[in-house]
Amino acid sequence: MQLGVIGLGRMGQIVVERVLDAGHDVVAFDLDDDAVAAAADAGATPADSVTDLAEALGDEKRIWLMVPAGKAVDAALDDLEGSLDADDIVVDGGNSHFEDSVRRAEATDAAYLDCGTSGGPAGAELGFSLMIGGPEWAYDELTPIFDAVATGPEGHDRMGPAGSGHYVKMVHNGVEYALMQAYGEGFELLANGRYDLDLEAVARTWNNGAVIRSWLLELCEEAFREEGSDLGDVDDYVAGGSTGTWTVQEALEQEVPLPLIYQALSERFASRDDRFSRRLANRLRYGFGRHEVARKDE
Amino acid sequence: MQLGVIGLGRMGQIVVERVLDAGHDVVAFDLDDDAVAAAADAGATPADSVTDLAEALGDEKRIWLMVPAGKAVDAALDDLEGSLDADDIVVDGGNSHFEDSVRRAEATDAAYLDCGTSGGPAGAELGFSLMIGGPEWAYDELTPIFDAVATGPEGHDRMGPAGSGHYVKMVHNGVEYALMQAYGEGFELLANGRYDLDLEAVARTWNNGAVIRSWLLELCEEAFREEGSDLGDVDDYVAGGSTGTWTVQEALEQEVPLPLIYQALSERFASRDDRFSRRLANRLRYGFGRHEVARKDE
Amino acid sequence: MQLGVIGLGRMGQIVVERVLDAGHDVVAFDLDDDAVAAAADAGATPADSVTDLAEALGDEKRIWLMVPAGKAVDAALDDLEGSLDADDIVVDGGNSHFEDSVRRAEATDAAYLDCGTSGGPAGAELGFSLMIGGPEWAYDELTPIFDAVATGPEGHDRMGPAGSGHYVKMVHNGVEYALMQAYGEGFELLANGRYDLDLEAVARTWNNGAVIRSWLLELCEEAFREEGSDLGDVDDYVAGGSTGTWTVQEALEQEVPLPLIYQALSERFASRDDRFSRRLANRLRYGFGRHEVARKDE
Amino acid sequence: MQLGVIGLGRMGQIVVERVLDAGHDVVAFDLDDDAVAAAADAGATPADSVTDLAEALGDEKRIWLMVPAGKAVDAALDDLEGSLDADDIVVDGGNSHFEDSVRRAEATDAAYLDCGTSGGPAGAELGFSLMIGGPEWAYDELTPIFDAVATGPEGHDRMGPAGSGHYVKMVHNGVEYALMQAYGEGFELLANGRYDLDLEAVARTWNNGAVIRSWLLELCEEAFREEGSDLGDVDDYVAGGSTGTWTVQEALEQEVPLPLIYQALSERFASRDDRFSRRLANRLRYGFGRHEVARKDE
Repeated sequence: MQLGVIGLGRMGQIVVERVLDAGHDVVAFDLDDDAVAAAADAGATPADSVTDLAEALGDEKRIWLMVPAGKAVDAALDDLEGSLDADDIVVDGGNSHFEDSVRRAEATDAAYLDCGTSGGPAGAELGFSLMIGGPEWAYDELTPIFDAVATGPEGHDRMGPAGSGHYVKMVHNGVEYALMQAYGEGFELLANGRYDLDLEAVARTWNNGAVIRSWLLELCEEAFREEGSDLGDVDDYVAGGSTGTWTVQEALEQEVPLPLIYQALSERFASRDDRFSRRLANRLRYGFGRHEVARKDE
Repeated sequence: MQLGVIGLGRMGQIVVERVLDAGHDVVAFDLDDDAVAAAADAGATPADSVTDLAEALGDEKRIWLMVPAGKAVDAALDDLEGSLDADDIVVDGGNSHFEDSVRRAEATDAAYLDCGTSGGPAGAELGFSLMIGGPEWAYDELTPIFDAVATGPEGHDRMGPAGSGHYVKMVHNGVEYALMQAYGEGFELLANGRYDLDLEAVARTWNNGAVIRSWLLELCEEAFREEGSDLGDVDDYVAGGSTGTWTVQEALEQEVPLPLIYQALSERFASRDDRFSRRLANRLRYGFGRHEVARKDE
Repeated sequence: MQLGVIGLGRMGQIVVERVLDAGHDVVAFDLDDDAVAAAADAGATPADSVTDLAEALGDEKRIWLMVPAGKAVDAALDDLEGSLDADDIVVDGGNSHFEDSVRRAEATDAAYLDCGTSGGPAGAELGFSLMIGGPEWAYDELTPIFDAVATGPEGHDRMGPAGSGHYVKMVHNGVEYALMQAYGEGFELLANGRYDLDLEAVARTWNNGAVIRSWLLELCEEAFREEGSDLGDVDDYVAGGSTGTWTVQEALEQEVPLPLIYQALSERFASRDDRFSRRLANRLRYGFGRHEVARKDE
Repeated sequence: MQLGVIGLGRMGQIVVERVLDAGHDVVAFDLDDDAVAAAADAGATPADSVTDLAEALGDEKRIWLMVPAGKAVDAALDDLEGSLDADDIVVDGGNSHFEDSVRRAEATDAAYLDCGTSGGPAGAELGFSLMIGGPEWAYDELTPIFDAVATGPEGHDRMGPAGSGHYVKMVHNGVEYALMQAYGEGFELLANGRYDLDLEAVARTWNNGAVIRSWLLELCEEAFREEGSDLGDVDDYVAGGSTGTWTVQEALEQEVPLPLIYQALSERFASRDDRFSRRLANRLRYGFGRHEVARKDE
C-alpha cells in the first residue's frame, strides 16, 4: 500500500519508518526540508508540498496527518481540499479534540479517521496503541497500515464513529495524569518516610510481579536510576494539561465525577504558581487566632 | 463563685477578665510572674504556685486550666493531685485530644470537664463558644462561669460524657480548615480571573446578605483591607494542622470519608515543601513523551 | 423612582415589595396573571405585556429582569427591543452565565447591568447581597433601587464592567457548594462518631461565638431542629449544579485549581447514580486477590 | 534448602509449590488438616503442630509464616517461642503492619524478615514481588527461597532494616487503591459518555502499546470480557481498606499529602452507606433556596 504522511516530527518519522519496514511505500512531506530529507533517507519519496504529495498518491489516496493538534490540522486539510474525494482516506494521528474531529469528518470530502496515538517515542520499536474513529470501510481498508504502526493487530481497534478515537485517547490521557500522580504520591511518602530507601530498587521489585506493575512504573524505575532516589534537580513544575482539561470538561458535561483525575490536573496548575488560597489561609489564622503570619522573603 | 485559673496566656487572661466582669472571684496562677501580675491588675487574687492556688480555693474547688494541650495539662493535674476530691471540678479549656481527656477524667479525683473553646482572641469582647463534656452535675454547677466565658447561655452546652467536648471541638477545627480553603479557592479564582476586582469590596458585599456570609468571611474582608487584593507579601505557607490531623485520623477509624477536610489539611502539608510527586510527574513526561524536564534554578 | 419588574416569581415578588416599601413606584409584568395580581395587591401597577410595561415607564426606563437564566432572559430582551435606547437601564437579577451577560450588554441598546443576587427567599426581610457589573453611571443612577433590594448600601457594589456581577456570583455559588459539603463532612463524622450527640445543640453552640459560625450553619441548626439529628428521611440526593459547573469550567480556563469546590460538585454528581468506578474496583479486587465480588440484590 | 511453611491458605500453598518446584524441601503446617494434606500431596512433609514442624526442621530453622495479619502471626510466634535461637530465620509473608513487624523483630530470638508479598493468586505461575526488611545475612541466606517464591532474582529485594518490607508493601497497596480508582474514573466517563463503546476492546487496545498499559488494566480487560461493558450486576460496594488506611495514617504522621490515595480510600468508605453530608446539602438547599427536599422512598 502507498501512504502519504504529512508532518515528520518525532512521531511522524516513526510512522514513516514503521510503515516502510512493513513493506509499504511512503510519500512524505513536512514544512521543514530537513525532516523531509530524513524521511527520504529512510526510504520515503519526498514531496515538495501537500499538493505535490497528493498528486504523487494518485487515485484512492491514503494520507496520515501527524501534525500538532489545532490549526496545523485545519491548514493541512485546507491544502488538501480539491484533491480529495469520497474514495480517499485521511487519518489524523495527532491529539485533536474529538469535537474538532467530528467537525472535520463532516467537512472533508474524503473518509476521515480520527486516530488517538499512544506510546510516545518508545513506540518506535514496540509500536503504538491506536484508538480509531470513523467509517468502518476506511478502517478496514487501512488495517495493513495500522498493523504496521501499532504493536500489531491487537494494538489498534475501531472505537466507533467519527470522533470516538480521539475521545478515547482524551480519556486515556486523563487516566495517565492520575496514574502518574498516584505513583508519585507513593514515592513521595517513601522518600519522606521512616526508611532510607533505594527507590530504583523499590520500583524494580514492584515491576517484577507486583499488582501495580506497569509501563509507567518502569519509567519511574528509569527515572530513579538516572536521577537518583531524590530526583536530583528535577523541579516540581509540571507542564502540559490540555487533554486532561478536555477530559474534565467532558465529564462536567456528562455529570461524571472524576476526583482523582481532577486532582492530578490541579497539581499541574498548582505547580506553576503560589497558591492564593494558602496565602489567605495563612492570613486568616492571624485573623482568628493571632497566629504569626508567614511573610515572603523571611 | 470563686474560680481558680491556671494558665494566663492570651486566652487565660480573657477567661479571667470575663469571669471577673461577671462578678465572680478569681485566683490566678501562671509560671510567668508577669502574667500573674497582669491578672492581679485586673482584679484577680495572685497565687504563687498551683498548691497555693488550691489552698486559696478552699473546699469545693472550681479550677479552669488554660494551658497548652499535652504535657502542660498533665503537669498541672500532677501538681493538683492530693488537693482534689470528688466535690471539686476541673475544667480543661485547651485544645486537648479527646482521648487524653477521657484518660484524665478517669484518673482525676475531681469531676473533670473537657471544654473545647472557640472564638480566638476576638472572644475577649464577644465571648467564646464552649463545647463541654463530662458529668452533668459539674456542668450545671459551673453554668454561671460558662455564661460569663461564653457569649452567654446559648454559647455553651454539654455535648455528652467525658471527651465529648474536645471531640466536638476537634471536628469544629477540621471544618474550619475546609471553610478557609473553600473561601480561598473562590478568591484565588477571582484574583486570577477575567476581571480586576477589589476583593475587599467583594467580601463586604457577600457579608451583607449573601448565602456564604460568615465570621471567617468577615476576616477575609479584614485581610483584604489590611493587605490589599493581592495579599501583599503574605506567603503561601500555612502552619498548624494538629487538630485537623486528629479529625482525619478519627474519621479513618470510623470509616467516614472527609475529602474536603483532608484536602484542606493536605494544602497545609503541601505548602511546606516541594511536591516529590510533581517532580516525578515532570520527569515521567520526559520518560514517555520526551517533554523537556524542568530543572531547579533554571 | 419608577421601576419596571419583569418576572414575578418568588424572587421577583420580593424585589417588588422591597422597592415599593422604600417608596418607589413599580410597574410589574409576568406571563402568569396571578403573579401580576399579587404584585398589584402589593401596590404595583400591573402591565399586560412587556410592551405595555415599557410604555408605562415613559422615557429613561429602569427595568429589572427577574426571570430564569437562559432563554427567558433573551426572550424578555427581544420583547423590549425597539423600546430601549441609550438612556434606559436594564438589570438582569437572575443567575445568568457571565458570558451571556457580556453578549447581552453588547447587543442591548440600553445600559445593561448584570446583577448577581444572593440571599434566597430569606432576603425578603433582610435584603439581598447584590454583585453588579456594567456602566458606572447606570449603577450610580439605580443606587436607590439597589439600596432597597439589598440589605442596604453595604449590601451591593459595582464589581466592574459588563459580566463582572454574574462572574462574582458564579464564584460565590462555587464557594457555597464547598461550604455546605465542609459542614456536612463535620456533621457526618459527628453522626457516625463515638458520642451520641444532639446536632442541633452542636450547631447552636457553634453559632454562638465559634470561628465557624455562619448563616449556612444557622441553616444547619434549623435543619437538625426540624428533621432531627439523623435528618429523618432526607435522601442523599443533591440536585442542582449548574453554577458550580460554570465555576469549575472557568477555573480550568484560568488554570486555577479548585479541589474542594470540584469535590463538592462531584458529590452532587455522585449522589445521582451508582459509581461505575467503584463497581470496577469491586471487580478488580477479585481479579488480583480473588476477593468475593459484591453483586446487586444480594 | 529446607523450609518450614506455617499457614497453607491460597497464598501459602503457592509458596509451598513454588519452593518444592525449585528443588527445595518443605515441612508444612496449618490448623486445617485438609490444607496440610494438600501440601503433602504436592510433596511437602506434613507436620502435626508448630512444635512438630520446628522439630522436623532441626538446627538453623528457616520458617515462612503465611497467616492472616494480626493475632495469627503472634500466635504462631508464641508457639515457636523456645524453639528458636539466633541462627534461625522467620519470614512473615503476610500483610502485617510495619510497626508490628518492628516489634516482633525485637521480641523474636530468631532473625526476623518482614516480607511484603504482592501479585495475588496470579503469582502461582508468574511468581510474586517480595519486599523484604530485616538483617542482611538472613536475607542473603534465604535468597534461593526468595528466588523461587518471587518471579526470580529481580522480583525480590531487601528494602532495609526491620519493618521496611511491610512499610513498602503498605505504600504499594495505597498506590494500588488509587490506580484502580483512576482507571475506574476513565471507564466511568467512557461508560457514560458520547459513544457506545466496547470497553473490553478499549482496554485491549490500551494494553497493547499505550502509555497507561499495566497488569491492572489487563485485569480491567478481563473484567469487561467476563461481565460486559456495563459490568452486569457488579455492585458499587468496595470492601477492604486496612492497608490504605495505614498508608494515610503514616502520611499524616509524616505530613505528606496523598490526595489521590485518600480519595480512593474514601470511595470505599462512601460505597458502604448513605452520605450524611449529601443529605445535609440536600436539606440546606431548601434552607436558603426553598429547593424541594428529596426524601427517601419517593
